[in-house]
Order: sequence, then structure tokens, then C-alpha cells
Amino acid sequence: MSDQTRFMLNETDLPKNWYNVLADSPIPPAPVLNPMTKEPITPEFLSVLFPMEIIQQEVSTDRYIEIPEEVREIYKLYRPTPLVRARRLEKALGTPAHIYFKNESVSPVGSHKPNTAIPQAFYNKVAGTKAMTTETGAGQWGTSLAMACNFFGIDLEVYMVRVSYNQKPYRRIFMQTYGAQVFASPSERTEYGRALLAQDPDNNGSLGIAISEAVQMAATSGGTKKYSLGSVLNHVLMHQTVIGEEALKQMDLAGEYPDVVIGCVGGGSNFAGIAYPFLRQNLKDGQRTRLLAVEPTATPSLTKGAYTFDYGDTAQMAPIVKMYTLGHTFMPAGIHAGGLRYHGMAPSVSALYDAGYIDAIAVSQIGTFDAALQFTNAEGILPAPESAHAIRVAIDEALDAKAKGEKRVILFNLSGHGHFDMTAYQSYLNGELVDYEYPAHAIEEAMKDLPQVAVEA
Amino acid sequence: MSDQTRFMLNETDLPKNWYNVLADSPIPPAPVLNPMTKEPITPEFLSVLFPMEIIQQEVSTDRYIEIPEEVREIYKLYRPTPLVRARRLEKALGTPAHIYFKNESVSPVGSHKPNTAIPQAFYNKVAGTKAMTTETGAGQWGTSLAMACNFFGIDLEVYMVRVSYNQKPYRRIFMQTYGAQVFASPSERTEYGRALLAQDPDNNGSLGIAISEAVQMAATSGGTKKYSLGSVLNHVLMHQTVIGEEALKQMDLAGEYPDVVIGCVGGGSNFAGIAYPFLRQNLKDGQRTRLLAVEPTATPSLTKGAYTFDYGDTAQMAPIVKMYTLGHTFMPAGIHAGGLRYHGMAPSVSALYDAGYIDAIAVSQIGTFDAALQFTNAEGILPAPESAHAIRVAIDEALDAKAKGEKRVILFNLSGHGHFDMTAYQSYLNGELVDYEYPAHAIEEAMKDLPQVAVEA
Repeated sequence: MSDQTRFMLNETDLPKNWYNVLADSPIPPAPVLNPMTKEPITPEFLSVLFPMEIIQQEVSTDRYIEIPEEVREIYKLYRPTPLVRARRLEKALGTPAHIYFKNESVSPVGSHKPNTAIPQAFYNKVAGTKAMTTETGAGQWGTSLAMACNFFGIDLEVYMVRVSYNQKPYRRIFMQTYGAQVFASPSERTEYGRALLAQDPDNNGSLGIAISEAVQMAATSGGTKKYSLGSVLNHVLMHQTVIGEEALKQMDLAGEYPDVVIGCVGGGSNFAGIAYPFLRQNLKDGQRTRLLAVEPTATPSLTKGAYTFDYGDTAQMAPIVKMYTLGHTFMPAGIHAGGLRYHGMAPSVSALYDAGYIDAIAVSQIGTFDAALQFTNAEGILPAPESAHAIRVAIDEALDAKAKGEKRVILFNLSGHGHFDMTAYQSYLNGELVDYEYPAHAIEEAMKDLPQVAVEA
Repeated sequence: MSDQTRFMLNETDLPKNWYNVLADSPIPPAPVLNPMTKEPITPEFLSVLFPMEIIQQEVSTDRYIEIPEEVREIYKLYRPTPLVRARRLEKALGTPAHIYFKNESVSPVGSHKPNTAIPQAFYNKVAGTKAMTTETGAGQWGTSLAMACNFFGIDLEVYMVRVSYNQKPYRRIFMQTYGAQVFASPSERTEYGRALLAQDPDNNGSLGIAISEAVQMAATSGGTKKYSLGSVLNHVLMHQTVIGEEALKQMDLAGEYPDVVIGCVGGGSNFAGIAYPFLRQNLKDGQRTRLLAVEPTATPSLTKGAYTFDYGDTAQMAPIVKMYTLGHTFMPAGIHAGGLRYHGMAPSVSALYDAGYIDAIAVSQIGTFDAALQFTNAEGILPAPESAHAIRVAIDEALDAKAKGEKRVILFNLSGHGHFDMTAYQSYLNGELVDYEYPAHAIEEAMKDLPQVAVEA
């Protein structure tokens, strides 16, 4: 066991491959369905939205997919990221547990999202794409894709949930510094957005609506624009496995191996990114690392949702996938962790959770911010509210180990910093935050709107 | 020469000593004067504001001062910081020059300021200080000292320039997450502040005024509160030399040695931090690295100011030092680089510039933001407007090398990121920025308010 605090890798240790969990998953993936025909989707349908290399990665069952040299060169602007032993937090908690975190907040935009934005922009560049569209909630994803598209000379339109567009002007400006065009969603630019605004000119928007608009802009562009998604899909989660692959090497430098790996889940990509390489070791070497996904009590898709086929977006234009879902019509409570408000969950995370390979837990908003400031006081870094969900559970694990007098090695993913979340922290400091519980019978209500599909759910 | 992009050091390479340029400076330092008596200051006077260890460091001529183990432990939360070769920027410029930057933006607060905040809080803790005061302009310094005081359980009052307090609520909240109390300056809490508000209730404040208030609160606290300054003084600049000491080792890893080292200057600390270790090598080994300080044309203390004795603050309560100054009554133009608006300059930087050991250049606001976005487009990182001054000159050096067909090794200090400067970037993107020139005869006018001192200027 090392007495160091930070475990750094050299550039030469940057992973050469992404890890594809589908190669090892004990559960065959459910088919992805066309939202109109409800039949298994064809590459032709997907090719309207994505370049062929992305589509191939989405359905691949190869265990490893090589990271292109052009992508690795850009990863090197911020990767490998540090693995940090939170010694001061351990001391503050008085725990015998060892707490490690992977610091993804050091990327230029402050989160893990560039790990997939960069390859997605690259594959589009190779395919000749000149313009792309995407949605963003709080702005982490939009900023990441804006940076990546800028690197490869691709124009980008971002549909930003209107309430965030108005409340978070800094994120909007950040995207604009990378040359992106940012529109409040619902917008006047799409048929769907115009219809919503006609009903309610003050519509605040939602991530589901923004996805619908970004998809519609690409689908109706006559092939001139492609679409990009920042979570949920297999290829996105796979790109994020650079986090876990590095963490495996760094835990080795630390001379320890985690008993539990923790990540917050919205769509599931940062959790999968750190957890899947450890899942591989569980399956291969018989390791017994617990993989723990953390979601808000306000949007508990894994712990309270149904495992069934549902639309990926509100307007029923995105593919239908089998996932844990609160229903595509779900309107999330106004929690500050904007990245965790999605109604569904990545199909691979859903399948592995259903089969018992990963665990999940839901935590409340106020407890999450308590943990965030405990972390800040000890380690200096102010975390993103999303990441604070993982911190809450890491602290709970450390306190549980203390209560039981056990040594425990805890690893969590610090997916991003909170420099753009100051209004959330102000609400917390002012005692204005509230906790939201998902209503007991809401899930039954939500299930009435599910798509009717022919395949077995 | 290495083909790497980022040059990382291990924790064991973290410097064990700060470098004190006064040991090697060819110019004996001018005396520091008591603002009331105009006589050389006594340790007793200083001890009202600072703990004895800080005072001893301020006047020390020892070449190296050991970094306490407790400080090194906290440095390890973010140090050693990366040295990065800006390969993509080089390519975009088509220059044969090699451009390196030291990335101080990776600290938890996003700048180099914790390098001195942490030891200052530590020495106060050791001396039994329970509460501290300081001022902040845009908020970088206040946030850093808030973090450091929080680590050592010291209460902190921050006097924040009122215009920034109102326009930059995110920085204020950031300080509050570390437990600091933040007051808009001028405030009702000090005699000086009350007097200013009585004259003009809408007084926007200035850094000089905020310094006066923070000093007054400590000086009239009956010994219960100490004061801390984030730049200008010898001990502050010395603490920042961890930057240059690391950079020396990292340039060695890169297999190159800089022809020019560039940093922006407000009070002078980040520039001195990176440059002084290279100055030592110039003096010792006969190296010929050009050390280049960059200031805004709006506040050109080195290139347009007078080298003379002046007050450190507006209210004439801070010590009188010999420095390049625009006059302590100088009201800076509203440039966005809030950290570069100070009327004076660190005495050691002033003396070394006067004697020709370092060079200086002034750059305009719009050209600076042009350079900032050129850097962002290539390297992904959005720089602080202050740091962008160094980038402007690094790019100009690279283009000059290109024009002359010369190889040139350029090193600049990226003192911070621009995550809290989005309104500045919005102004730039909207074409609303203006350039400010320092009026030709303003310096003669300003010199009328200088203190009358007995010692020779």
C-alpha cells in the first residue's frame, strides 16, 4: 500500500482500447425498436442520425475497440486523470476505510463528458459530417460536444432545456466560446417545439423535449446534420470506460483493490465508465467488487422504475429500448442535479442491474449537498451536484465500515466539479433546498403511456 | 526532446523549498516605510497584521525556505501541476516554436492563488490566529484564502470590491461554500467604508479600498484578527516559486530549456512564481532566458508608471513601498482582467525590472481575448482573462519565431481558468469590448499624490 495521495499515470499508460461490456454480459441485449414501426431497428434508420462507425460500435460484441490515434491525441489534453486518495476526508470521518476517487473534473470543461464527445465528433468528421445537433440539460454535455466539434471543425446546434438556458447563462456562454449555436428548447426551430410553444409559450422544457428537437433537426436535415447523444447508448458508455481502465492501473499503483465502486447515474455513462472494467474483473478473476449506482430519490429509475420497453424521448421519435424507466412522460422534480433527471437508464446498466450484477441506491437532495460540502471542506474540490450523489454513498460506506470496525476500500467517480452550480449551493446554504420523494403509485400511472411492442418485455 | 504532450511529476518531486529571490537579487531591497511616520517599518508594526513567521519570511535573505510538511500535504491535493506542450496551438499557428504552459488552473479553485493562501493560513494557525481578513477583486484570491482558512479552522472575512460582489455572485457563493463571510466593499463595517458610503452610497469600490478595509478590520481588532495579502509582498511571491521550481524539472523531462518565460502581472506573484527560479539559473549558470512580464495597456504600471515610493492602498494605511506605480489614487478602467487592475507592482519585480533583469510589455484587451479563444480552440481550456495576457504574448513570440524561421522554446504560466469570467467572454463574443490606453500625461498628475518620504527614492 502506497503512502501517496495522488496516483498519476503517464501518457503511455493512456488506454489503447475501450472496453465493451456486451462481450462479457451474461444477458443478451434486448432489441432496439423503431419508434414508428415498433420493429427491431435497422442500420438504415440509425444512419439518418449517426455515422456508420458509431452504429457498428453500438451493436458490436467485440470485447475491445481500438481508440483511434487522433482521439488519443486529444484525450492527452487532460488524460490520464488523477486517482486521488481522500486522506483528509478519511481523517475527518475517522474511518478505517480507504477512500479513493477518480478525478474527472480536470477536463477542460470540468466533467467526464468529453470522453465520448471527442470520439463521436471524430467519427463524424471521418464520415464527412459538417454539422451536428444535440440537447443539453444543465450544459455539461453541450459544452463537451461544443469543444469536441470545435476541434474537428464541425458546426454544432445545441438545444438547451429552456429553464437552464435562462438560469445558467454561464454554461450557454461557455458553449458559445467553442463556437456552438445554442437554442432554448422548446424552440421555434422544430415542428415539435413550435407545437409545444403554441400550447404554452412559457414551457420550461425538459431533457426529453430537447432530445426530440435535436433528433428532429437531424432527421429532417436531408442528411446534412447528424445527431449525438451524451449517455444511455452502448457506444457512449463504452467510450467512458477509459475512466475505469485507468482506475484499474492506478489502484494497482496504490497497492489496493476496491471493495466497492460507486458512481451516480442519470443515463448511466459515468457509472458504467468506471464500473464496467471492474465488472469484467469480477466475471474473469472472481473478484467481488460491489458496483453501486446512485440515483436521486426524485428520479429513481432503477430503484422504483419498471424494467420494460419505453421511448428514449418525450415526443416518441427516439428509438424504443428496454430499460428501467419512470415513463417517457415523466416530469422530474426540480432537483439541482440536472444530469440525473432523465426518465430512463442505459439498457446495459438496466440489464445488469436486473440480473443482479450491479446494485443501486437512491439518496435525497439535502443529504447529497451535506456530503458535497463535507468533501469540499476536506479535499478542497467543490463537486457537481450529480457527483455529490456518489460522494454521499462513499461517505455512508466509510461510516458503515467505521461502525463495523472494518477496513474497506472505496472508489468513487468524481464525474465533475460544481463551478457552474453555484445557485444550487446558494440554495443549500440558505436552507432553501427540499427533498423530493417519488410518489408511491406514480409508476403505475406512468406505465399507461408505454409503447405497445410485439417483442416480449 | 520528448514526444509527449503533458509532463507530470510525482508527489515525491514536489519542491521541498521555496526560492527567495532576495538572496540572489543584485539590488538591495528598498526599505518598507510606515504609512504614518514615513520611517522604516518595524516588526512591531507588521506584527499587528501578520504572524511572526510571515514577517521573518518577508525580510529574509535566505536563499531557500523549507516548505512545512503540513503545507506540502495540502499542496498534494493538486500539485505538482502539469506542464503541457501546446502542440495543437503550435500547429494552428504553423510555428517552428515550441510552446509550453504550466497549468495552474487545476487547483480546486482554478488558479495559482492557493500556493500562498495555504502557507499563510498555516503560519497563522501555528501562531494561534482564530480569524483573518482579506480583500478580493474578482474573487480568485478570496476563494483561495477561504479554502485555506477552512482547512485550518480559521474564520475569514473577505472584503469584495462592490462592483464584483454584485456582478459575480458565483464567486461570492464559492467563498461561502468554504465558510467565509463575504462583504461588499466599501462596507458599513469599517470607519473608512462608512465614510466613503456617506459621500457616495453607490460607490463601486476598488481593490485599494478593499485592502484598506481589510487592513483596518485587522488593525483595530485588538490582536484577534490577522490580515493576509494575495500578491505584491516578498513572502507571497516566494510561496509562488513552487510553480517555477516544478517547471524547471518538467522542462528537463521535456528535454528542452525555455528561451522566454512569460507571465501576466497585476501585483506580480504568478509571474514571479514561474520566473524567479529561471532568473536564478540565469544568474548562476549564465542561462539567457528572457523573463517577460505582461500587463494590460489599461494599467501599465511597469511600462508607463513611475519607480518610486507609494502607498500600497487607497486609504494610505498599508505600508509604503518602492515600486512601479500609477499612483495609489489611480482608478483603473473597467477591464475584465480584475486581477491586473492594481496600481502598483511587487517591489522585487519592480527592482529587477528597473535593473534590466526582467522585461515587460503591455497588451490591449481585445487582442488578449483574441488570443484566449485561439488558445481555447486549440487546447480546449478557456483561460482566465488575466492568464490570456500571457497567452497573447506567447502567441506573438511564436509568430515572431515563425516570421524569422527560428526555433524558440516558449514557456508561459496559465495562472487560472475562465469558468467565472463568462460575462467577459459574452462581451467579447458580442463585440462589446473596448481597448483602454493609459492617458499620456496621467502619470504626472498621479505623482502629485505621492507620500513625502525622507529616504531617497
